[in-house]
Amino acid sequence: MTPRPHPRLSLNQATIKHASLAEALDVARGAGYRSFGAWREPVAEVGLARAAELVRASGLRISSLCRAGFFTAQPGAAREKALDDNRRAIDETAVLAAAGAPGSRAVLVLVAGGLPEGDRDLVGARARAAEAIAALAAEAAAAGVTLAIEPMHPIFAADRGVVSTLGQALDIAEAVGPEIGVVVDTYHVWWDPELPAQLARAGASGRIASYQVCDWVTPLSADTLLSRGYMGNGHVDFARITRLVADAGYGGDIEVEVFRQEIWDAPYADVAARVAAAFDQAVAPALG
Amino acid sequence: MTPRPHPRLSLNQATIKHASLAEALDVARGAGYRSFGAWREPVAEVGLARAAELVRASGLRISSLCRAGFFTAQPGAAREKALDDNRRAIDETAVLAAAGAPGSRAVLVLVAGGLPEGDRDLVGARARAAEAIAALAAEAAAAGVTLAIEPMHPIFAADRGVVSTLGQALDIAEAVGPEIGVVVDTYHVWWDPELPAQLARAGASGRIASYQVCDWVTPLSADTLLSRGYMGNGHVDFARITRLVADAGYGGDIEVEVFRQEIWDAPYADVAARVAAAFDQAVAPALG
Repeated sequence: MTPRPHPRLSLNQATIKHASLAEALDVARGAGYRSFGAWREPVAEVGLARAAELVRASGLRISSLCRAGFFTAQPGAAREKALDDNRRAIDETAVLAAAGAPGSRAVLVLVAGGLPEGDRDLVGARARAAEAIAALAAEAAAAGVTLAIEPMHPIFAADRGVVSTLGQALDIAEAVGPEIGVVVDTYHVWWDPELPAQLARAGASGRIASYQVCDWVTPLSADTLLSRGYMGNGHVDFARITRLVADAGYGGDIEVEVFRQEIWDAPYADVAARVAAAFDQAVAPALG
Repeated sequence: MTPRPHPRLSLNQATIKHASLAEALDVARGAGYRSFGAWREPVAEVGLARAAELVRASGLRISSLCRAGFFTAQPGAAREKALDDNRRAIDETAVLAAAGAPGSRAVLVLVAGGLPEGDRDLVGARARAAEAIAALAAEAAAAGVTLAIEPMHPIFAADRGVVSTLGQALDIAEAVGPEIGVVVDTYHVWWDPELPAQLARAGASGRIASYQVCDWVTPLSADTLLSRGYMGNGHVDFARITRLVADAGYGGDIEVEVFRQEIWDAPYADVAARVAAAFDQAVAPALG
C-alpha cells in the first residue's frame, strides 16, 4: 500500500496539466494529498464561482495560484491589459484561498514576462516589471493576497521571465514593500551561487511565499521549459536546498510542479503517487 | 567592397569549427582580420610546433586559446589527468601567443566542467574547480599565461560549467591571486542583473582577460549549446554590455565565437565577412 503523501506536500495542477480542475482536485484528494496548487486556466474553464465550490468540496488547502504577471510591455494598451488581468488574478486568488481548507495561502505567483518583441532593453523591461508590482501592491494587500515574485532560470530571460535571480526578486520586493513575497522554485534557482545568502535574506524578512520543487534533468528537452523531472531524476541537491529553505523559516506547503511531456501523458493517479514517493525520498528527509 | 574588419575584432576558430587551423588562419587573414582566437583541437591535429609556424606565418595576433579546465572530478586519477591536460594547455598558450603578432595575449580560457556523473554536490564541484585553478596558478604565472575563468550560462551548470556567474568567477580569481583573469562572453552573462557591478569589479582589478561576443537567439536550438547567433540576430544588448566592458577598462581584442549549425555549414569566407559586418553594426559603435 502506498504511504499517504507528506502533510506539507501540495500537488500543483501543472504536473497533471491535462486534467480539468475537478479531475485534478479528485486526483489529489484520492491520493491523500492535503494541499493543491491551482492554475488559472482550469479555473477559468469552469468559472471562478464553480471553481471555488469545487475547491471547498475537495477539503484541500490551496497553496498558491499560478500565475499572473507578464507585465513588461511598454506603457500603453498592452500594459493596461496586463495590469487588469493581474487585478482579476488577485481576486481569483482571494476567492480560491477562502474556499480552501484552513491553512490555505492567498499567494499569487507572478512571472515577469520576457522582453517585448524586438526589444533588447533588459534593464528597462525589468524596471517595468518592478513598477507593475508596485502598482498592484495596494490592491493585493487590500484583498489579503500576497504577490509572490518568481525568479525564473536565466534560460528564460529573453522570452518568459526577466527576473532571473532570487536576489533580484528580493530587490524588487524590498523596494515595493513588506507584503511582497518571492517564490523559490528549485528548477529556477538551484544553480545560483548566491542561493544560501539570498534564502537567508528572504527568510529574515518573511518573504518566502512558496517553495516549489522539481528536478533539472539533462539532456534538456528540445522545449527547455519541459526539462523538468521528478525529484531525484536530475541534478538538484534537494536535501541542501530544502534545509536552506527550512532554516530560512519557511514552514508552509511545498508544491511539486513538473512540466514534462511524458508525465503529462501518464495516468493522473500514477503521477500523483509518483510525486508523493519522490517527495518522501528526496525532500521530506530534509524537513526533519 | 567589404570594409576591413574592425582592428580589435578576432575571429574565433569555433565560429568556423570545421576548418583546420591552417584554413582558419587563411580565412581570417584573407578577410582582413588582425586577430584570431585559437582552439586546442585544431592545434593538436597538426602538432604544437607546426601550429606555431602557421600562426607566425599568418601574421595574426592570437587573442586567446580555448580551452582547458574541466577539473571538477573528485580527487584521484581523473583529476590528476585533468590537471596534466591543463598544464599542457598552459604550454600551448605560451607557445602560440609567442608565435602570434605583437599584441598577442597568452590567455587560456578555462571552463570549469560540470557535475561528475551521479554527483549532486554543486558546492563541492565548485570548490574543486577553485582548488584546481589555485593548483595551476604558479605554473601559469611562470609561463606568462593568464588563466581566464569563463563563467557559463546557468543552463550549463549541471553538465558543462559549474561556475555560473561573473561574480562567482571573480570570487575564485580574487581568492587565488592577482594574476587570474575572467572571460566575459555575452552569451553566458547577458542576463545577469549583477553585470554592471561585476564588470566594474573585474575592471578595477584588471581581470578582464577576454571579451567574447555572440547573440542569444530564441527559440533555443534543440542542442542549447548551439543557440548562439550573429550579433543582432537575438536578444543581447551589445551596445550596453560593450560600453560596460569598455568602461571597465578592457581595450584588448574582442572575439566572435558562435556555435551554430547553419553557420558551421556555411562557407568559411562568408562567415568571416558576416561576422565582421555584424560586429561593425552591433558592437563597434559602442567602442567609441
